Amino acid sequence: MIRAEDIRWDAQGLCPCIVQDYDTGRVLTLAYMNRESFERSKLHGLCCFFSRSRQKLWLKGEQSGNYQHIVTMEADCDADAILLRVRKDGPACHLGTDSCFDTTLRIDFPKPDAKGE
Amino acid sequence: MIRAEDIRWDAQGLCPCIVQDYDTGRVLTLAYMNRESFERSKLHGLCCFFSRSRQKLWLKGEQSGNYQHIVTMEADCDADAILLRVRKDGPACHLGTDSCFDTTLRIDFPKPDAKGE
Repeated sequence: MIRAEDIRWDAQGLCPCIVQDYDTGRVLTLAYMNRESFERSKLHGLCCFFSRSRQKLWLKGEQSGNYQHIVTMEADCDADAILLRVRKDGPACHLGTDSCFDTTLRIDFPKPDAKGE
Repeated sequence: MIRAEDIRWDAQGLCPCIVQDYDTGRVLTLAYMNRESFERSKLHGLCCFFSRSRQKLWLKGEQSGNYQHIVTMEADCDADAILLRVRKDGPACHLGTDSCFDTTLRIDFPKPDAKGE
């Protein structure tokens, strides 16, 4: 079980949350929860975050209809990060892409297993 | 391409980094980079972070031998999070588990597609 009191909330009362597509494994978004959004997410099984730019609760999909249904919600070994594996109703990114990690700000390295081949 | 000047470093000069296993898709760790660790990671293709607890650079694997070889390194739509997909030489977690997300602080929700079945 995961409870709000287990989480090491930061000085702003937030915890970073990795959102991952349950089916494809694709990382979709990094967002933040405060205690209230954590409790709402846990209660309803829908991703609810705290928007740092708007400084308010943000139920993902409330505007766009692209809700994210939580399949698993877990903390890491230090209890200062949360991983949410979800099924999503539509694109995760406000730009309309499947994932927020779909930019040109990217490097591809030579694959380690290709060394010496 | 991704450059240090593209990243929106936070007030502490850090950016959260999601580390994901390139082959399995498993999310391994959430860590942080500052500019110096970013540049070292980019130069050597090995994950180098900034340890917030020790307040110093942390080349992942330097002590344990469990280096993480970067396959892709990319920023998100807001350029305030980094995703590193890696091949790893051993467990990602200091507790010896494959992933830092391997705790009992977890909830499994009923899968959305199971509704009404």
